[in-house]
Amino acid sequence: MPRVVVDVMLKPEILDPQGRAVLGAFARLGVGGVSDVRQGKRFEITIDGDLTEDRLAEIHRMAEELLSNPVIESYDLRVEP
Amino acid sequence: MPRVVVDVMLKPEILDPQGRAVLGAFARLGVGGVSDVRQGKRFEITIDGDLTEDRLAEIHRMAEELLSNPVIESYDLRVEP
Repeated sequence: MPRVVVDVMLKPEILDPQGRAVLGAFARLGVGGVSDVRQGKRFEITIDGDLTEDRLAEIHRMAEELLSNPVIESYDLRVEP
Repeated sequence: MPRVVVDVMLKPEILDPQGRAVLGAFARLGVGGVSDVRQGKRFEITIDGDLTEDRLAEIHRMAEELLSNPVIESYDLRVEP
């Protein structure tokens, strides 16, 4: 069954407090050489049957309207076999 | 600068209420053909300088101990150029 993966990340210009907290923890734990951490969401959507163009378009719409907040987030969508 | 991406997902046998809520919303909004949705976390880690083997091993350790909870989650780590 095909799977659609949607990654939702805060836009680069939006401050990311969760990523910042992880970056701080890395520093406290002595993990060097890391200049930035950004944290986002990952959705794995399992498709039942064929992934038609119409279905893919619908999932694109959901990624934009339901899974992300386009004011502050951008999404990346890809189909995995 | 190289970037390390860590995806953290709940293990398949662990109930995922967030993914279940998204699946329910898809159904209510008339998006058909979706049999499952799982929601997880994505970390984008920007490396300052070269990604040596030691650094990568440290980030693997952080992915296991800090970014994920190995009791209920698994992680996938990959290096992007």
